[in-house]
Amino acid sequence: MALADIRGGARNEEGIAAALPRLAGRFGARFQTGEAIRAQHAHTTTYIPAQLPDGVVFVENAEEVKAVVSLCAELKVPVIPFGTGSSLEGQVNAPNGGISIDFSNMKRVLEVNAEDLDCTVEPGITREELNVYLRDTGLFFPIDPGANASIGGMTSTRASGTNAVRYGTMKDNVLAVTAVTATGEEIRTARRARKSSAGYDLTRLFVGAEGTLGVLTSITLRLQGIPAVIAGGICGFPTLKDACNAVIMTIQLGIPVARIELVNTLQIKACNAYSGLTLPEQPTLFVEFHGNEESVRLQSEEFGAIAAECGGGAFQWSSDAEERAKLWKARHNVYWSAKALRPGWEAIATDVCVPISRLADCVAETEVDIEEHGLLAPIVGHAGDGNFHVSLVFDDKDPAHVAEVEAFVGRLNARALAMDGTCTGEHGIGQGKQGFLPGELGGTVQLMRQIKQALDPDNILNPGKIFSTLSGN
Amino acid sequence: MALADIRGGARNEEGIAAALPRLAGRFGARFQTGEAIRAQHAHTTTYIPAQLPDGVVFVENAEEVKAVVSLCAELKVPVIPFGTGSSLEGQVNAPNGGISIDFSNMKRVLEVNAEDLDCTVEPGITREELNVYLRDTGLFFPIDPGANASIGGMTSTRASGTNAVRYGTMKDNVLAVTAVTATGEEIRTARRARKSSAGYDLTRLFVGAEGTLGVLTSITLRLQGIPAVIAGGICGFPTLKDACNAVIMTIQLGIPVARIELVNTLQIKACNAYSGLTLPEQPTLFVEFHGNEESVRLQSEEFGAIAAECGGGAFQWSSDAEERAKLWKARHNVYWSAKALRPGWEAIATDVCVPISRLADCVAETEVDIEEHGLLAPIVGHAGDGNFHVSLVFDDKDPAHVAEVEAFVGRLNARALAMDGTCTGEHGIGQGKQGFLPGELGGTVQLMRQIKQALDPDNILNPGKIFSTLSGN
Repeated sequence: MALADIRGGARNEEGIAAALPRLAGRFGARFQTGEAIRAQHAHTTTYIPAQLPDGVVFVENAEEVKAVVSLCAELKVPVIPFGTGSSLEGQVNAPNGGISIDFSNMKRVLEVNAEDLDCTVEPGITREELNVYLRDTGLFFPIDPGANASIGGMTSTRASGTNAVRYGTMKDNVLAVTAVTATGEEIRTARRARKSSAGYDLTRLFVGAEGTLGVLTSITLRLQGIPAVIAGGICGFPTLKDACNAVIMTIQLGIPVARIELVNTLQIKACNAYSGLTLPEQPTLFVEFHGNEESVRLQSEEFGAIAAECGGGAFQWSSDAEERAKLWKARHNVYWSAKALRPGWEAIATDVCVPISRLADCVAETEVDIEEHGLLAPIVGHAGDGNFHVSLVFDDKDPAHVAEVEAFVGRLNARALAMDGTCTGEHGIGQGKQGFLPGELGGTVQLMRQIKQALDPDNILNPGKIFSTLSGN
Repeated sequence: MALADIRGGARNEEGIAAALPRLAGRFGARFQTGEAIRAQHAHTTTYIPAQLPDGVVFVENAEEVKAVVSLCAELKVPVIPFGTGSSLEGQVNAPNGGISIDFSNMKRVLEVNAEDLDCTVEPGITREELNVYLRDTGLFFPIDPGANASIGGMTSTRASGTNAVRYGTMKDNVLAVTAVTATGEEIRTARRARKSSAGYDLTRLFVGAEGTLGVLTSITLRLQGIPAVIAGGICGFPTLKDACNAVIMTIQLGIPVARIELVNTLQIKACNAYSGLTLPEQPTLFVEFHGNEESVRLQSEEFGAIAAECGGGAFQWSSDAEERAKLWKARHNVYWSAKALRPGWEAIATDVCVPISRLADCVAETEVDIEEHGLLAPIVGHAGDGNFHVSLVFDDKDPAHVAEVEAFVGRLNARALAMDGTCTGEHGIGQGKQGFLPGELGGTVQLMRQIKQALDPDNILNPGKIFSTLSGN
């Protein structure tokens, strides 16, 4: 498929041939070259074709990461960090071959500082595992991209999700990382102080770098107190515009809403069908508030008043865990409910983000586009951030249909950029979005390339991601 | 004075000689070379000796910035951006000479997007000017470093101040910048969407880069709704530890305190003397809450209960503007009240930041150090962030006293680093903190240096700041 721009450079056959026996010698059974394992580590969750690494090493500590990167640096062989494989833009593919570094044995929580609301973890731990570990401390790590992704992967794609409107993205919640750079040295980007003005913000440079500047070995995260009370509810609106106006007013009035998700009419139909609900088929906001009894009541009432002012239906909220869980399960299952609209077809998720004042226009124009081109594509959005996903359900065996989908993705991204938005709110560039990055940032991409070149002159750190360093884009 | 590490490289006499007439030809009276003007542009607000630029150009728009940087790039002459000159670590000095680019004629608000809570401004506007401009929109820009600094300068030093505990630092409040790079090209680091995963986070790289990677030409900022009600008060504690415990509990419980400032006993005495107050002479927290009638009442009551639990005195809060203004004026005048402790002596401000669990220890050990060495040095802290400032009052004409102060600063920074803290929470490295950066970040400084080298190979962008690119540190 041409949707993916999966340019790599040439394979270094000689280096790879030299690396394999040395890694086997050092790691024994923890170094695997079987095709099934290699294919699993190039799984992209998407339409982007898999590009297999030549071997997979299951590291257990930072020293081993240093050893692998040093060896690969010496032989100029690519290294591709692998968390859970839930990235969506081909981030774990190996266009030049090389070694996948699997972090599933690096899941330790290295420290929790409850008084400082922070913890330091190894990259392989997933967000759900971390939250289970933290439960007794009264703290939690809030970022929720949907998938049970690894913290290393979430850091590397600058992930966010449904509650970024309140808690921010990974950019806001990583205090420091340690990383092994292209020379095989381990560096730490910052101390544990909550703020610092000590030189360039290398923490933020590594957050979202998709493994192209270094291989993460630990991540220090900000934590939050588990809210005493969580309340939520849903509210339908006559039009998308009305729903978006309610979002804008909620944000403007500073109501600290924890989640505020926009679900369009087709997606509501899909949720009803898939999750056995009977929600009115209209644009709907799913909202959630975190606080104590008094503050969530206050927030819910304030939101209810705003919703009414914007033409919304009655806003019923509840702090009953079971009721909330049922609704949010429907929200979290949107991918599967979309796919279920047409069994046997594929589904892919797009990921544009625009200023929230443009969200209603962008979603409405996109709905018209979908209608006009006869596509099957429900929409959900992290409305408080202006970020939305179109789930494109299509027949991946029909080249004409695939071409239609590609053309739609192109129009969608052009529409978002024309509204001063971005081609990716939270999934990253990887391979799939490379074609859109120059249109978004122009000459700025050249600065990124210069930084990559300076820190990884041999292009061994996850090559061919974000931009191809070997050819212009 | 040796306190400052003000290494630059060699002056490029030939290039500077060639640049002056060309700038005079292009800018006429807006290019100045008189000594008084040049000295004013090397004013460092500190003990760091002034190093004058060779000329000052008063630019009026981005095209002119491009012209100046292009000319200086061609001739390999340094450019030093200048906002209001309120930086504290020698950021506006010109160790290699060169051209100061004065932004006082670039103060336009380019756009305000009220629905998106953002605005785009030129670098020369000060935060007070911006807030006057915004007043009618119901929005404000919250970051308050005390000084009426320019937005460009605040961006470049990653400034914060008293309300960072609620609103974050410049890192959290800059959405995008445009900057002229070392080649004279203007780039934009991001679109106006509230979040993005599109490649390296160059916005965050420019925030805190102190003008060493590019000259800012515009900054897109996040704004906040002006709170309907602001309430605040003060509360004394028997010990520093008790006050810090109250801070930790406040943060842990998620009370969205807008300011929570720690003032030590000596500083309370200084405030009483300078501002005509009669506050009990003990460690004291100044707190402020933003919200509506109901939410500030709730927050104030919750804080009062915490303070009582931690041994604090009665917490009286008020939303009366005049009462609050008087108290906060005392807080904002700490520098002058410290200086007034000994008329004729100098005062300088240190700036370490530690994890908040270590704040009480760090401040208490610092008080003992001050006492043991007979120094005159009150302390204030942005306690919610773990950031505190010691105001050292000393006789800058007495070399022995200066040496005592230098030794104290060294011990203070070592203490903060030993507690996993930073040598600068919000003032930046500039020239004054260069000696502490390697101790804080080790090999990471080499990565910063490689980035600098890649983006500014001729070292013309504010050279000699953060690190000397010409000699190891």
